[in-house]
Amino acid sequence: MAVNLTEPAALPPVAGARLAATCAVKARRRDDLTVMEFAPGAQVAAVFTQNRFPAAPVIVCRKHLSAAAPQIRALAINAGIANAGTAGAGLRDAEKSCAELAKLLNCKPAQILPFSTGVIMERLPMPRYLAGLRRCAANLRADNWLPAARAIMTTDTVAKGAHCRAGGYAVTGIAKGSGMIHPNMATMLAFVATDAKIPAAMLRRWQRDICRDTFNAVSVDGDTSTNDSFVLIATGAAGAPGKTAAAALRRGIAKVCETLAEAIVRDGEGAGKLVTITVRGGKTFAVCRRVAETLARSPLVKTALAAGDANVGRLLMALGNAGGGFAPEAVNLQIGKVAVIKNGALAPAYKESRAAALLAKDEIFISVQIGGGAATAVLKTCDLTRGYIDINAAYRS
Amino acid sequence: MAVNLTEPAALPPVAGARLAATCAVKARRRDDLTVMEFAPGAQVAAVFTQNRFPAAPVIVCRKHLSAAAPQIRALAINAGIANAGTAGAGLRDAEKSCAELAKLLNCKPAQILPFSTGVIMERLPMPRYLAGLRRCAANLRADNWLPAARAIMTTDTVAKGAHCRAGGYAVTGIAKGSGMIHPNMATMLAFVATDAKIPAAMLRRWQRDICRDTFNAVSVDGDTSTNDSFVLIATGAAGAPGKTAAAALRRGIAKVCETLAEAIVRDGEGAGKLVTITVRGGKTFAVCRRVAETLARSPLVKTALAAGDANVGRLLMALGNAGGGFAPEAVNLQIGKVAVIKNGALAPAYKESRAAALLAKDEIFISVQIGGGAATAVLKTCDLTRGYIDINAAYRS
Repeated sequence: MAVNLTEPAALPPVAGARLAATCAVKARRRDDLTVMEFAPGAQVAAVFTQNRFPAAPVIVCRKHLSAAAPQIRALAINAGIANAGTAGAGLRDAEKSCAELAKLLNCKPAQILPFSTGVIMERLPMPRYLAGLRRCAANLRADNWLPAARAIMTTDTVAKGAHCRAGGYAVTGIAKGSGMIHPNMATMLAFVATDAKIPAAMLRRWQRDICRDTFNAVSVDGDTSTNDSFVLIATGAAGAPGKTAAAALRRGIAKVCETLAEAIVRDGEGAGKLVTITVRGGKTFAVCRRVAETLARSPLVKTALAAGDANVGRLLMALGNAGGGFAPEAVNLQIGKVAVIKNGALAPAYKESRAAALLAKDEIFISVQIGGGAATAVLKTCDLTRGYIDINAAYRS
Repeated sequence: MAVNLTEPAALPPVAGARLAATCAVKARRRDDLTVMEFAPGAQVAAVFTQNRFPAAPVIVCRKHLSAAAPQIRALAINAGIANAGTAGAGLRDAEKSCAELAKLLNCKPAQILPFSTGVIMERLPMPRYLAGLRRCAANLRADNWLPAARAIMTTDTVAKGAHCRAGGYAVTGIAKGSGMIHPNMATMLAFVATDAKIPAAMLRRWQRDICRDTFNAVSVDGDTSTNDSFVLIATGAAGAPGKTAAAALRRGIAKVCETLAEAIVRDGEGAGKLVTITVRGGKTFAVCRRVAETLARSPLVKTALAAGDANVGRLLMALGNAGGGFAPEAVNLQIGKVAVIKNGALAPAYKESRAAALLAKDEIFISVQIGGGAATAVLKTCDLTRGYIDINAAYRS
C-alpha cells in the first residue's frame, strides 16, 4: 500500500564497503541480519534516538564512537528484535555480537557498531545470531546493498534504497522505517555510504545539517523509538574531493537522504497519502517546525486526509493547538493553490469542491503562512488509516 | 460501542434552572439547540478552551463574563456547527443570538452566554436558529435535563448526565464530547448546576480545582477544540450552605464532574476500552501529568491496547518520549497488579500471559512509578480502533 514507492531496481556498490545478509533472528526464512564492512581508514558519523530508553546497541554504539579517533570497521544490524529494555543482559548481548564480529574480521570489538530494530523488551537469540554473523563474515560482497535493504525491514512493505553519483563519487544508502516515525529519529535505521575520503569533523557537520532536513523532517505517527540511528560512512577508497567536488558530493548525499526519508513516509504504516507540510513566515525554524508537527500529529487532521474529506476546520483546530510564537489572525493556509484559511478564518473565496479535488489525490501539499518572518520548515507525513490500526494491533509476528 | 456506558434513567431538576431543546441547526429531525435559563441572582463560573482559535461564542462568553458582576440569566447551546473560524460574521451571529434570547427573556444581551459545537468554519443558519430560540423560550421546564443532554450531542453515541444530592442540595450536570478530547478542554461542553447559593469567588475556585482532576484529566485523541467550555452554575434557589454542607456539596459537584468526564472517555470515538493511567512519584504534578499524557497520546500504545496485545515494549518506548524530570532507570510500570517494567527494563518475573489476561478486559489500569516524589497524576483515556478512523473519515453529516 506504499504511496508511489517501489523497490530500487539496483543499488550500485560503493568502493570500500562490503555487505552480507542472512536469516539469524526470527525463524521465518527471510534475511534479518546484515553485516556491513568498511575498508581500514573509513570515517563513520552517527546520530541516534533522543528516546530516554535507548536500546542496548545504541548505548554500545555511543561508547565505541566516543573514542578519540574511532576506527569503525563494521556494522552488525538485525531486524525482528530491538534489544531495548533488556538491561544488563541486553548490553552483554550487544557486546558479545561486537566481540564475535571483531574476531571474524580481525579487529577490536570497539571497531564494531551494533544496531537492532524490532520488538522492544525481548532478548536476541544469541546462538542463532552469532552463527548468522559467521555466515555473513564469510560472504561479504560489494554488490549486496539490495539484499541488505531487504534484510533490515520490519513492518516496511518495500525495501528502501537510493543511489547517486556526485562530484565523481558514489553515494548509496539504505533505510528502514514505517512506524514510530517522528522527528528526532524514529524506528528508523539509515546507512549511507560514499567512497570519498572525508575528514571526520566535516562528515559530522554534513550529517547534522542533512539530518535536520531529511530524517528529522518526517513523521508517521509521532512516536520515536528506542533504536533509531542514522550512520554516514566515507570509506575513503576513491580519494579526497576538491572543493567543488565536495560541494557536489554533499548535495548528492543530501539527495540520497531525502529520497530515503521520503520513502519511509511513503511506506508509513497504513499510509494511503503522502502529505508535504510547509510552514513559512515564522520568526524561527523552531516555531515553523512546531506548527508543522502539530498538523502532522493531529489524528483528526490525519483521518480527514485519509478520507479525502475537506473537513478543513480541523486544520484550524490543529493550528490553534500549535502553541505561541505567531499571531492567529495572521495565519493563511492553502491546500495546493486553493486558499482555505485567510487571516485566521475561512477564506472568503473558498470552494469546498476545489479543495476536495486536491484532497482526493495521493500526494497532498499543505502550505501555511504564519507571519512575515524569514524561517521555513518542511515536514513530510502520511494519513491515518484503518491500515495503521490493523498493522499495529497485529504486529509482533 | 461506548465502554459500559448507558444514558442516565433520569436527571432530576435543580431549583432555579429551566431548560428546553429543539431542532434548529441541522435539518435532521433531532434536537440540536438548547436553552438553559436561571433564576435572577444565579452565579455562573466558566472555563474555556486554550486553543488559539477560540470560536465566536467563546469570545462572546469571555466578553460577557468579564463584567464586574455578570448577572448571567441564560445559556444558548447548539450542536452541529461550531461557529469557529467564522471571523466577524460569526461573532455577529453569536451576538445576534444573545440579543434575541435576551429579548425573549426580558434581560440584557450581556446576560446571555452562547455555546456551539460541531463542524468548524461553517456559519450558523441564523433564521432557523433564531426561530429555535423562540420555541425554546416558550417551552422552558425544570425537568428537561435529559432532552438537553441529548440535544448537545455530536458524535456522542450516549447522552451523558449525572446527578447527586450533597449537603442537602441538588447537583445535576450534562456533558458532550467524544473526539478532540484532551486536557485543557476538548470538544467538550459541560454544564453543571446546583441549587445552592455560592459566592462567585468560591464558585470559581471550586471550578478551577475540580476541572483539573476531571475534565482536564481525560484524553481521547490529543486534539483540543476551538469551542470547549465547562460552566458551573449555582442558582441560589435553595439558599446558602453552612460550612459542613458546603464541603459535602463541593465533593458532590466533583463527583458529578468526574462521572461526566469519565463518560466522555467511555464514549470516546471508536473506544473499546477505558484506560486509567496513574503516574506516581514525580517531583511535581506537571511531570507526572506529562508522563501520563505521553502514554495516552501514543498511537502505538493505543493500538496495542485496542488489540489487547501485550506488546509492552511500546509502553517503554512511550515513557522514553515523555521528556525529563525523572530517572529512566528508576521507572516501574504495572498493568493491574502485574509488574511489567522494573527499574527501566523488563521486569524479571514478567509473564506475558498474565498481562494479556488483563489487557483483554475492557477496563485497564496502568500504574507508573517514576521516582520517590510526592506528586501523582491520573489520566483517563481510551484505545485507538478502526472505529475512530471510520467515524473521523466520515463525520460531517
